[in-house]
Amino acid sequence: MRPFILGMLAASLAVSAPVEQWGVHEIVLSGPEAGNPFVETQLSARFSRGARTVEVQGFYDGGRDYRIRFMPDEAGRWSWRSQSNRAELDGKTGEFTVSAPAPGNHGPVRVRDKFHFAFADGKPYFPFGTTCYAWVHQGDEVEEQTLRTLRTAGFNKMRMTVFPKHYTFNRNEPLYHPYVRDAQGKPDFERFNPEFFRHFEKRLAQLMELGIEADIILFHPYDRWGYASMDEASDFRYLGYIVARLAAYRNVWWSAANEFDLMRKPAQIWDRYFQFLERHDPYGRLRSIHNGRELYDHSRPWVTHVSIQHPDTRQTAAWREKWGKPVVNDECQYEGNIPNDWGNLTAQELVDRVWFGVIEGGYVGHGETYLHPGDVLWWAKGGVLHGESYKRIAFLRKLVEEAGEGINPAPGTWAWRSHATGIQGQRHWIYYGARQPARVRVPGLPEKKPYRVDVIDAWEMTVNTLPETFRGATEIALPGKPFLAVRLRPAE
Amino acid sequence: MRPFILGMLAASLAVSAPVEQWGVHEIVLSGPEAGNPFVETQLSARFSRGARTVEVQGFYDGGRDYRIRFMPDEAGRWSWRSQSNRAELDGKTGEFTVSAPAPGNHGPVRVRDKFHFAFADGKPYFPFGTTCYAWVHQGDEVEEQTLRTLRTAGFNKMRMTVFPKHYTFNRNEPLYHPYVRDAQGKPDFERFNPEFFRHFEKRLAQLMELGIEADIILFHPYDRWGYASMDEASDFRYLGYIVARLAAYRNVWWSAANEFDLMRKPAQIWDRYFQFLERHDPYGRLRSIHNGRELYDHSRPWVTHVSIQHPDTRQTAAWREKWGKPVVNDECQYEGNIPNDWGNLTAQELVDRVWFGVIEGGYVGHGETYLHPGDVLWWAKGGVLHGESYKRIAFLRKLVEEAGEGINPAPGTWAWRSHATGIQGQRHWIYYGARQPARVRVPGLPEKKPYRVDVIDAWEMTVNTLPETFRGATEIALPGKPFLAVRLRPAE
Repeated sequence: MRPFILGMLAASLAVSAPVEQWGVHEIVLSGPEAGNPFVETQLSARFSRGARTVEVQGFYDGGRDYRIRFMPDEAGRWSWRSQSNRAELDGKTGEFTVSAPAPGNHGPVRVRDKFHFAFADGKPYFPFGTTCYAWVHQGDEVEEQTLRTLRTAGFNKMRMTVFPKHYTFNRNEPLYHPYVRDAQGKPDFERFNPEFFRHFEKRLAQLMELGIEADIILFHPYDRWGYASMDEASDFRYLGYIVARLAAYRNVWWSAANEFDLMRKPAQIWDRYFQFLERHDPYGRLRSIHNGRELYDHSRPWVTHVSIQHPDTRQTAAWREKWGKPVVNDECQYEGNIPNDWGNLTAQELVDRVWFGVIEGGYVGHGETYLHPGDVLWWAKGGVLHGESYKRIAFLRKLVEEAGEGINPAPGTWAWRSHATGIQGQRHWIYYGARQPARVRVPGLPEKKPYRVDVIDAWEMTVNTLPETFRGATEIALPGKPFLAVRLRPAE
Repeated sequence: MRPFILGMLAASLAVSAPVEQWGVHEIVLSGPEAGNPFVETQLSARFSRGARTVEVQGFYDGGRDYRIRFMPDEAGRWSWRSQSNRAELDGKTGEFTVSAPAPGNHGPVRVRDKFHFAFADGKPYFPFGTTCYAWVHQGDEVEEQTLRTLRTAGFNKMRMTVFPKHYTFNRNEPLYHPYVRDAQGKPDFERFNPEFFRHFEKRLAQLMELGIEADIILFHPYDRWGYASMDEASDFRYLGYIVARLAAYRNVWWSAANEFDLMRKPAQIWDRYFQFLERHDPYGRLRSIHNGRELYDHSRPWVTHVSIQHPDTRQTAAWREKWGKPVVNDECQYEGNIPNDWGNLTAQELVDRVWFGVIEGGYVGHGETYLHPGDVLWWAKGGVLHGESYKRIAFLRKLVEEAGEGINPAPGTWAWRSHATGIQGQRHWIYYGARQPARVRVPGLPEKKPYRVDVIDAWEMTVNTLPETFRGATEIALPGKPFLAVRLRPAE
């Protein structure tokens, strides 16, 4: 992000500032601060290049500051013109030049090949995410520790809430509140707190620099401040403000809610929030919604991919078929040792669930909930990782990225099976889970084309390529221990 | 069994022989051997005591031998009279005295309290069974080894087939065939082979002496000799012969089939076989049927208990509710390391499945399938045990027997839960499975009555009683490792 500030007396034609393709170009305008600019001032701008025009909403940022953020998706010369119901903000224009993206900037993520994802420049993206719901509400010390952890942990997606969180292990007051509050702590849902959002955006940009997509949870039920029970008008005002502030960051994904069905909102409202995002987000960022016990109908047109909470990742192939979209199981329960059912998996069990989901053609998220003397549990607050699963998930990510296309489920499995089978180009994957076969049969290799067999230990993180090649129906000796996979690939 | 032989010239009033209550009283009569006595000779006897009469079928045993076997269910004086279409066998009579049962003889097993079992003398019976399908077809060396293993393994039920087995790891020819065969090996389904049955009965009686119930599988699909595809008349003839020979053994349970839905028989035939057993078995031995993929409707009146093959023992409480009968999950897959999906569980996984089923108020069977250089896999042939699960299952059996009443599921669980909860009298059981909680919450202890907490390690086979007592809502520290249970019981 390279903000370029236009003072009160700026010329109507602003000078250009350097911005790279898929970066954030920010325009700052000065405007009225009287009354309540959050609701009384309308501001937008049209960004143009050649025949193309993109309309973008601006937002009030406190004091006399108004901002308009734009993510250009093409290099070259762009121009803009503002519209406002305030004379001081209306009819401003400018131009700027967009440079080629810097190394490491591949653009925003889109759906690819129906069930997978890619960056805008075509590079495949395979989500291996984690969850630190309220990490941006913990204060600089823990937040910076979280960023240091993320630098090497191997995740490329983060599920995180906008609103602070009130829940078991989450009783601390947030660093900032999203709304101005009175002396009794009552929020004014017509006045946002720009300081809150500037802090949120700083963390969002830091994730972007680390190559981490931010799956931003817009609503959630874990609340003691009133954010979960605003009226509809306030919900829409909030969505508008969020989109204006955040949509230009290329690593943004919209998660309409966490456990939407545990919120006291009418079921149909979610469709309207989705439609609002569709209409106002100029970039069409990925959109989904996360369930509690009741699944959302992900076949609806505004849902770009399936975000699901479900412990049984062996249903991944069936979910793909059911909804015809990429499946991201963001919460299949967490590695940890807390009393709650969803938070005391062994590392082995979580790794097993991730493998099953991935080999069946989906993606599965990580989370960690180990008891901590200061209640700093990774899943909510970040900090450091204490578990063992994340290393194995990073190992799997490396394997999946190696061949580049994404894994699709092999046909013909049944519900009681012990293993997952998937196909990635010419590679066949078979994952045997927590079983301990000492011998396995691999049906269906071609008779005429020799194949190599890699024996993968998902827990020990080793790949052992067998010295011989194989053809036709094949029997392979395995070490007879849990968490083994074989990968079959044409011999070079 | 104490056979008492009546020679060709025996008096019409036979002298009595000593037999205990629930033992086998056997009468041997001499009769014709010309023609085909298996189909041409009818023989039965009425056994009477006071106002009661029990009609029992006899059977031809080769040469001039005809036998009638009877299990008296009361001590005291009994008399009998034979009926036959052959003069030599008709109108024979006798008397005998039945003594009190010897120690260890508790009589046959019946359904108790809707979902559980008890012996005829009222002692509760909790099935902790295993499977050695074709163990009686392996020859004396392996069969005697199997019996030695069973002496200390801790099982009290055995699933076993009458017919020999043709299947993966089961290619050897059986010791005996159940039918007379011609030079080409073609069986004559109208002529049984008494030697086969005498051998089978010897093994059956040895199980009885070990206190092991025999879940006898009458039909199964694993066949290369024609026993799975006899015509209907032969099936009924076989059932009649089996009932006449075996029903008097108090440890007999009837399993109409193994994987009935994988046999090429019309679906309705099973109902008729059940009805045949109901009509001809004078003792009303327990009756069920074992499925492949398709469940039998166990609500039918002739089914005494649910025998099920299903890997997901967490559905046990639901099955109880569905069928209103005791649930015995005889096959939830096996500990082992073979390529087949159903035969490569870790010992931990099998123990976990058994615990879930038992704490939810059912019973779960054991099986073991480790690769063996001579293909002697316990699940089919017996021999010795190589695994680790059987010891833990014996430990659980001891715990369940301690309090004597049987466990029933506690209400209010849901599908994603990590734990099983059950109630056994005043004891509450909570089993946490493969999770690793370091702390658990135990809701609902009475406020006024102190409870003791036993922390059970299902894998290490330890019971650790916490020094303090608990009341009301309780939080308990656990070792944070898999396979833990707590048992709550009123402090004495």
